[in-house]
Amino acid sequence: MPKRFQISTLETVAIAGVGLLGGSIGLALRAAGFGGRRIGIGRRLSSLRRAVEYDAVDEITRDAGKGVAEAQLVVVCAPISQFERLFRAMAPSLRPGTLVTDVASAKVEVMRLGRRLLPSHVDFVGSHPMAGSEKSGVEFSRADLFERATCIITPASRSGQPRRRRARGAASGRPVVRAKQFWEALGARTVVLPAETHDRLLARISHLPHAVASTLIALGRRDNAMSLAGPGFADTTRIASGEAALWTDIFHANRRATRDAIDELIVELRRLRRFLERDDTAALHDWLETSKQIRDRWVEQRYRRKELPP
Amino acid sequence: MPKRFQISTLETVAIAGVGLLGGSIGLALRAAGFGGRRIGIGRRLSSLRRAVEYDAVDEITRDAGKGVAEAQLVVVCAPISQFERLFRAMAPSLRPGTLVTDVASAKVEVMRLGRRLLPSHVDFVGSHPMAGSEKSGVEFSRADLFERATCIITPASRSGQPRRRRARGAASGRPVVRAKQFWEALGARTVVLPAETHDRLLARISHLPHAVASTLIALGRRDNAMSLAGPGFADTTRIASGEAALWTDIFHANRRATRDAIDELIVELRRLRRFLERDDTAALHDWLETSKQIRDRWVEQRYRRKELPP
Repeated sequence: MPKRFQISTLETVAIAGVGLLGGSIGLALRAAGFGGRRIGIGRRLSSLRRAVEYDAVDEITRDAGKGVAEAQLVVVCAPISQFERLFRAMAPSLRPGTLVTDVASAKVEVMRLGRRLLPSHVDFVGSHPMAGSEKSGVEFSRADLFERATCIITPASRSGQPRRRRARGAASGRPVVRAKQFWEALGARTVVLPAETHDRLLARISHLPHAVASTLIALGRRDNAMSLAGPGFADTTRIASGEAALWTDIFHANRRATRDAIDELIVELRRLRRFLERDDTAALHDWLETSKQIRDRWVEQRYRRKELPP
Repeated sequence: MPKRFQISTLETVAIAGVGLLGGSIGLALRAAGFGGRRIGIGRRLSSLRRAVEYDAVDEITRDAGKGVAEAQLVVVCAPISQFERLFRAMAPSLRPGTLVTDVASAKVEVMRLGRRLLPSHVDFVGSHPMAGSEKSGVEFSRADLFERATCIITPASRSGQPRRRRARGAASGRPVVRAKQFWEALGARTVVLPAETHDRLLARISHLPHAVASTLIALGRRDNAMSLAGPGFADTTRIASGEAALWTDIFHANRRATRDAIDELIVELRRLRRFLERDDTAALHDWLETSKQIRDRWVEQRYRRKELPP
């Protein structure tokens, strides 16, 4: 990996939560040429020690305040349900100008917590790197996890400004630029979106697919139908093997947009159902062909940009 | 591949439709030690010639009657919409005792057509090998496509016998045994099921997942949400890249069971939606955890039996 790390002022980075994502950030930082201290913050000593073994962090602590005290960059990689506790614990120790960001899959809730609990003298920006796997734990960390992945950056909204100017102002502001530099140094391409837009789109392309995968398993177990299923079923349901606690947090944090996405899905499934009821094979074919072409084009673009494995 | 082909009387095999599945049957027959003639039947000369190039068949013809005239085994690998035409064309030329089977993904309709159009002096049994890919065409054929795959065999029901005895009688009868031997020779494990049961279970584990994958694409294209999607979305929707014409046939042939499966899915999605509405994180966690555990166990079993790639 080329040494692209541009944030020359960076000496100490704190990573709160050293699982798959936190661990990969540690490894990717080192691979990108970061020579400073990587401090791992966690609750369980066993996980923290494993992170050191895997060379994902250099120092460890269970005290979030101590862990962030000398950091110029803090990345929160814990489940969303721990954000409130972590933000409260680190708030008094955060130095002015420190960039605080995270990797959570739901952003409105996280931005709300940050606005409420973090001191105004830090730069707080939301991040959602679209990388990971259904596996969890630092042992699955990879230095190249963020290579060519999309990372969505959600600016903090500033009260007292109109909504449109807020987003634009924040998007071009210093915190967003710093967050972009950080993720691009790890190999990601960045996209800046308001937290509300992020949550609505992610509900559709990530949280709903997860809901559907889990639902397919719930149906597949009936009459032991799954015993007949093959590789297609395995692919379609892969994400249902994700950590239940992690996904409970995500669904909880983004419950409104996920509910809307479920409603959209039911409307579209009913359309298909009507084609079947009327035995309208022409409409059925059009509908299937449209999805096939859209997906084929999408996959082709991803291959071309090397964002998907061949 | 060990030479396991036991049907020693087999001299000529006709394969009607030489795409991914038909081509793989040709290659797998040869790999399993079959030394006789493989006759490819198709509509387009270009596809048939490609099948010869890929060594999937030895001889080719566009005349289904001629193609099956000397065969002791006929495997119909064409889309379901062509079955009526093919059965009518081959019926007058089929020799007594010939085993006729197929690879279609919906079985009630196929069994009905066979019962109506094939002569009573042939052995007709439905087959559905759970193998394939979203790719199509003989160029994707593989001699090992059926290795460790599940092949569901659906016996022809015989009129004049009570339903239960019919199924049991047929399941232990000569046609089913011959079909089992054939598929096991190609490396598959076989399961015998009534056609109605096949269609109900397959709607749930194959046709519904396909419907859902296509629906997720239909939603994902809105507001260009898909531009943010990652590998998880790619996996969940992979099967939506299957041939639209092929899947139109399958949905059409199994439209009743697929509609029932869509209804089941909507009921279960509504359950999840209620958890979100009530913000019941305990119920949500239980629901996600149950699906995760069921899937993990299923995948583990498949790995152990080497039915899924590692």
